[in-house]
Amino acid sequence: MSDPGEQGFALDPRLTADTAFVADWELSRVLLMDDARFPWLILVPRRAGLAELDDLAPDQQACLLGEINRAMAMLRKTGSCDKLNIGALGNVVRQLHVHVVARRADDGAWPRPVWGAGNPVRYGQAERERMLEHLRRSE
Amino acid sequence: MSDPGEQGFALDPRLTADTAFVADWELSRVLLMDDARFPWLILVPRRAGLAELDDLAPDQQACLLGEINRAMAMLRKTGSCDKLNIGALGNVVRQLHVHVVARRADDGAWPRPVWGAGNPVRYGQAERERMLEHLRRSE
Repeated sequence: MSDPGEQGFALDPRLTADTAFVADWELSRVLLMDDARFPWLILVPRRAGLAELDDLAPDQQACLLGEINRAMAMLRKTGSCDKLNIGALGNVVRQLHVHVVARRADDGAWPRPVWGAGNPVRYGQAERERMLEHLRRSE
Repeated sequence: MSDPGEQGFALDPRLTADTAFVADWELSRVLLMDDARFPWLILVPRRAGLAELDDLAPDQQACLLGEINRAMAMLRKTGSCDKLNIGALGNVVRQLHVHVVARRADDGAWPRPVWGAGNPVRYGQAERERMLEHLRRSE
């Protein structure tokens, strides 16, 4: 938390509860959604009081865009995927966060979105550690 | 279609069937989803063969980001909204397109995403014309 811009930033407790920490990039905290059905990253810009994309200044938005690209590349390295889904919704957790999800035509929710598609299947501890390691090696 | 970069671009017929034309911006064709339940724009970069965000060159992505901001501002002028939802999915229609949707806590799908939330309610012709006019005046 060395960047003074991060002052007042705190991760929404629901995001904390549902995810595992992957890394802090220049702007965003990178989280792995704890749902083994989908390789699923969440980017949370480490700035206080954000809800909408355009609450970010243009240079911060450009940085976030670069980080979305980076997350896409990272997910592709976790295995084959047929489509990447990107979403910034915030109807439940208002804090600005961007989902980047690797989808396969044989995943249980295809072609529906992942949000609200059944119940999450938590990773086992060893499986989660393997995934986190894989992701960090793919950075 | 004066920009040679647009060569080979054609709107997916499912997008044509489900939307009304609003405008052509620098990169994107702007469409109104024909679903009166939600003020809902779709941006389709007018380039052939795109599926993923990172199929666009960085300068095109930056342009798209600007156009997403513009769509957000445009939707806010159509009425009060509690949250804007942004999504690039493409599981059904593979052609790259970005949804920008104005959500209200009293819309029928809240807080779920709009995709797959019941059946669309088509605008009446006069209502659609009013909406399109409103959007174009808000550009």
